[in-house]
Amino acid sequence: MRPDTDTSQAAVPEAMREPAAAINAYLVRLLDGLRLESGLDDAIRYSLLGGGKRVRPALAWWSGVAAGGTGQATLPAGAAIELVHAFSLVHDDLPAMDDDDLRRGRPTLHIRSGEAMAILAGDAMLALAFGALRAAASEHLGALTDELVRGTNAMISGQVCDTLGGMDESLTDAQRLELIHRNKTGALIRAACRMGGVLGGGNAGAIERLTTFGEAIGLMFQIVDDLLDVESCEVKTGKRTGKDAGAGKLTYPGVMGVAGAKGEVARLGAEARRAVEGFGRPGEALSDLARFLERRGA
Amino acid sequence: MRPDTDTSQAAVPEAMREPAAAINAYLVRLLDGLRLESGLDDAIRYSLLGGGKRVRPALAWWSGVAAGGTGQATLPAGAAIELVHAFSLVHDDLPAMDDDDLRRGRPTLHIRSGEAMAILAGDAMLALAFGALRAAASEHLGALTDELVRGTNAMISGQVCDTLGGMDESLTDAQRLELIHRNKTGALIRAACRMGGVLGGGNAGAIERLTTFGEAIGLMFQIVDDLLDVESCEVKTGKRTGKDAGAGKLTYPGVMGVAGAKGEVARLGAEARRAVEGFGRPGEALSDLARFLERRGA
Repeated sequence: MRPDTDTSQAAVPEAMREPAAAINAYLVRLLDGLRLESGLDDAIRYSLLGGGKRVRPALAWWSGVAAGGTGQATLPAGAAIELVHAFSLVHDDLPAMDDDDLRRGRPTLHIRSGEAMAILAGDAMLALAFGALRAAASEHLGALTDELVRGTNAMISGQVCDTLGGMDESLTDAQRLELIHRNKTGALIRAACRMGGVLGGGNAGAIERLTTFGEAIGLMFQIVDDLLDVESCEVKTGKRTGKDAGAGKLTYPGVMGVAGAKGEVARLGAEARRAVEGFGRPGEALSDLARFLERRGA
Repeated sequence: MRPDTDTSQAAVPEAMREPAAAINAYLVRLLDGLRLESGLDDAIRYSLLGGGKRVRPALAWWSGVAAGGTGQATLPAGAAIELVHAFSLVHDDLPAMDDDDLRRGRPTLHIRSGEAMAILAGDAMLALAFGALRAAASEHLGALTDELVRGTNAMISGQVCDTLGGMDESLTDAQRLELIHRNKTGALIRAACRMGGVLGGGNAGAIERLTTFGEAIGLMFQIVDDLLDVESCEVKTGKRTGKDAGAGKLTYPGVMGVAGAKGEVARLGAEARRAVEGFGRPGEALSDLARFLERRGA
């Protein structure tokens, strides 16, 4: 099951509040302006507005500020990333995929609205994600489109490898796992940071540091999720747990043990914070976000 | 079932040959350059390169020439449209949707590669469609993205209404049917013509005429498909027939009778040809394409 960020017991950091409120309002305005067919509109609102801590838009926001721009200017990218994230959750939960009936403590979309609608609403959210980029300053559209295509397809490739196997057999389990996780969850988080950096007008050095940051927390995020899967109970996470191990999937605790996985989380968290040290206050906000993601499982 | 264009008994017009050869080579190069995960790559090639007359890229091609540009310059749009078309066929054929096991005389992707891969490969093709637009001249990226988002979402809305119902109850069956068909099939054909026009550097008047042309043949295309469904046998179309009526779906022959539907096809064909009369030789090529689509069912 692909992780979302609603399952945390850690307190939401201050750095998340303003971006989360801004993106929620932005997404509502975006959907209001589209006037979609009513059943489709309803399904999309259920998936897109039904909770979610908005970690990715918050990462785009502070990456934009770190790069020298405003948080507001990153909202088109935040909306696009959140649409891709929501689409991926809906499709991953389908019976033919992870077959989950619970997400964020509520019925998954296909349980609520049927499989056909879940497929179609997911498709529509993916297309709308690219449309959302049109609200960004037009000189950035090319770079943003590149990032979103790359992030989305890496995510899909990661899901293919995770669900259907078929990877290079010369890789060790640990190598295979890192590759899957970097793609499945990491690529979209990386894209959020880079798109924020682009919209903030960051130079190559700034984008590079934001990329290092995004890659570290993206991988860390999935390891924390693996740990949650092992350690948590259904009440705490709002979704079924212990499922990955039961399905025979590769996980970090499975490959390197719980202690080894926790060590890797700490190492990646430190690497992420180091990468954004030079950004002043927005760098501190990014560090707070990293710390929050690191502590989700604590 | 969403129609494709491989079911025709009519001879392929000369105007289709050059664009079809060009887009096939272009799509192969595009996929070669992506180096996707091998299972995903295989599934996408099966869906995207497994036949198809490339009507939509041919429409974009000649629309581009009609607007004053070259056919070659329209290939990024043709590729994008063909990726969206292929994605829509794969998802529409899924068990939760139309549940078809035959497409273009071959097993549908979910029969061949499993449902999970069919969902994921469809998703990837949709994202790649937006990536394909990046090969177009950058000053057109915004307009092309708009057209592709609009076309894709109209197609999805049409599919929602057709599959799941829920339309405005004050509409007559005929009004409802036209709305579904204009969206489900027409919107992407319209987008192909408009995107060609944009890439050809057409002025507002040229784009307007190409839009009229695209809307007329888009609606005509679906009516012809309805007629094929009633009149043809499985051998001729390479897919199961009589299915729409069996599923209680609204169809043109059902609402206005076979003769009425044929009359509508003739009317729309004439309207389309009139719209492109002033474009000289590329206008004649577009007329030939319209005539070909009109005669599919003859």
